[in-house]
Amino acid sequence: MSQTADFVTHLECAMTGKRATAGVVHNLSEDGWPLLVRYDLERMRASLDRDEVWARGGGFWKWRELLPVRSDENVVALGEVDTPLVALSNSYPGAGAVVKDEGRLPTGSFKARGLALAVGMAKELGLKHLAMPSNGNAGAALSAYAARAGIASTVVCPADTPEINLSETALQGGDVFRADGLIHQCGAWTKARADEGRWFDVSTLKEPYRIEGKKTMGLELAAQLGWSLPDVIFYPTGGGTGLIGMWKAFAEMEALGWLEAAQKPRMVAVQAEGCAPIVRAFEAGERHAPAWENATTIAMGIRVPKAIGDFLILDAVRESGGWAQAVSDAAILEARAKVAAADGLLLCPEGAACLAAYDIARADGRVRADERAVIFNCATGLKYDMPRVEKQLSLSADG
Amino acid sequence: MSQTADFVTHLECAMTGKRATAGVVHNLSEDGWPLLVRYDLERMRASLDRDEVWARGGGFWKWRELLPVRSDENVVALGEVDTPLVALSNSYPGAGAVVKDEGRLPTGSFKARGLALAVGMAKELGLKHLAMPSNGNAGAALSAYAARAGIASTVVCPADTPEINLSETALQGGDVFRADGLIHQCGAWTKARADEGRWFDVSTLKEPYRIEGKKTMGLELAAQLGWSLPDVIFYPTGGGTGLIGMWKAFAEMEALGWLEAAQKPRMVAVQAEGCAPIVRAFEAGERHAPAWENATTIAMGIRVPKAIGDFLILDAVRESGGWAQAVSDAAILEARAKVAAADGLLLCPEGAACLAAYDIARADGRVRADERAVIFNCATGLKYDMPRVEKQLSLSADG
Repeated sequence: MSQTADFVTHLECAMTGKRATAGVVHNLSEDGWPLLVRYDLERMRASLDRDEVWARGGGFWKWRELLPVRSDENVVALGEVDTPLVALSNSYPGAGAVVKDEGRLPTGSFKARGLALAVGMAKELGLKHLAMPSNGNAGAALSAYAARAGIASTVVCPADTPEINLSETALQGGDVFRADGLIHQCGAWTKARADEGRWFDVSTLKEPYRIEGKKTMGLELAAQLGWSLPDVIFYPTGGGTGLIGMWKAFAEMEALGWLEAAQKPRMVAVQAEGCAPIVRAFEAGERHAPAWENATTIAMGIRVPKAIGDFLILDAVRESGGWAQAVSDAAILEARAKVAAADGLLLCPEGAACLAAYDIARADGRVRADERAVIFNCATGLKYDMPRVEKQLSLSADG
Repeated sequence: MSQTADFVTHLECAMTGKRATAGVVHNLSEDGWPLLVRYDLERMRASLDRDEVWARGGGFWKWRELLPVRSDENVVALGEVDTPLVALSNSYPGAGAVVKDEGRLPTGSFKARGLALAVGMAKELGLKHLAMPSNGNAGAALSAYAARAGIASTVVCPADTPEINLSETALQGGDVFRADGLIHQCGAWTKARADEGRWFDVSTLKEPYRIEGKKTMGLELAAQLGWSLPDVIFYPTGGGTGLIGMWKAFAEMEALGWLEAAQKPRMVAVQAEGCAPIVRAFEAGERHAPAWENATTIAMGIRVPKAIGDFLILDAVRESGGWAQAVSDAAILEARAKVAAADGLLLCPEGAACLAAYDIARADGRVRADERAVIFNCATGLKYDMPRVEKQLSLSADG
């Protein structure tokens, strides 16, 4: 096949519901909100078998009919795999908690899902230069997939972004800058130059396709659980694309008749105490989350003071019966150390934040031990600061 | 099932062929050589379907009948996946070169395969404390799987081992030391204390099971290629367990009738110019490789001056019609940069060394462009030194 059956009908403004045409270049909707891709799910339901799709190789690209890329030549692939569910047998014996380890994707993070789709669509639409702000992992994924697709990329990072991310992005051909601001400020700078035509802006939710890639986390998870969904999902929430994407995936699967039960998981948006705009808005009963001042946390990936999809995150969390939870950096480090030592699993700080939020919910009874809880570890733990080993050994002296 | 059909018949000294009993603790054979696990392949051939095995989940643990662990409770798992084959579409257009990206395994390297088996067997045999020398990745894999199994681990590393490896090993509960020597010297120190009963030595090929884990690279590769083998394999060779293991796997698959053709690949042992004992012995026509003096290379994983399985490596290379190739550190860095920028794939230095060796063989005609060549990228590129990004951006000044 050179082209997969195309089920995309149109794009839709996530706030107003106004339609937009598929197959042309879009950033935000004409009213300035994120655009969502809509499919002919009724026709897909009649022609597509879930188990046949799941039996395919190719990781997240296997969900082709549920993704916007039309032509096979625009499937930009780097060896995608289905990310494993890892039980926490020693640290949480007998409990229903599992970690979905997204660190196994190309460039070591879940950002691969979204950027593969953004780049694939950019290729399909003929874009030549992509740019965005990044706290690290997204930039690495952009540069890798862009290199693969033969598209130029520029990434603007806060100056304290982990060295590894900057270096890998640069090696992968990305034009990387350390900037004197946080991610939303880097984003404003990037957008201003996109408006001048210097490049196309692929910031979180400012183009319609990263969310389609991220939604494959939900598709994959359901398939791994025998076409059922867990009781609760703990998700590290910066821009929130993955949480919104999974919620969209669950609705699409329901429409396709792919789910064994109607029960959807409670979605828990996890943030750091030093940058918790979604938690603050959730608790205040607001639908939008104003920018967080003086954001600070070791979990760089969720150091996002202002999310353009705030209302989509908060809508999904509320609709699901879930909540938003802030955790301290100390709790993050403690959770990381606990699971690494007990279970041999090195979480990234954002993943560890989700585990810390799970601990809180277990302690106050919001989640029972027997409930199936999925903790998203969004990246390999290897990209982050770890305690330095100081123990020396003199082989001759100790001979 | 609580136990998989057990096909292990005995262990066999790789040098003398003398038999040893399975199911009891072993380091080297009574004559001081590596021990290999032997199976009743005739009985397995009659009862085991290759496609049924390949359709299982669980990454390398799917090959249970071809592995020595008997009881399911000793399958120590951390979310293993089949590692993808990634084409080098841009850097080698039209050529048959693919990268097998082992960095997707738990702890980010192919060492997971061997250590999962060593730890699983240690659990089965009741061992309580494992130790070994490591240039980094092996130690990380040992500590992770040992933590998972509830077994203590000690790792002794050369002082210049990458920080990330030391830190992850320590976080995963390993007792890690920086020692003032190279890996063979760390190994001698570890062995002396194993002899005193302080712990069990799981050094490369000094126990019989790591090679069984490593051989799954060969099983997996054949299945991925439709039960056929490539024309040539470029393998980064330190201790050489993987090369020996794959060669053993190919023979076992042949005996099982699992291969579509009798043709086996030429095996190329790749080393660094600054530490090339196998290359020197290969060129001198020797079966053993004396220790390399003053070993130095940026590719830490192949900085192994003396390999106990030298004769097994050299036998396999010669029998296959392959060769041994040394490459410079400059060529390694160049190969890494080329593929990262052109294809978005960040190789580790050892993987890049294999690509540099492929370049040499293509240039002198030993490998044709249309031949299917598999380059082993043994670990994620994220654990190694990369050029630092210096480009600064002042958001306000550039406003």
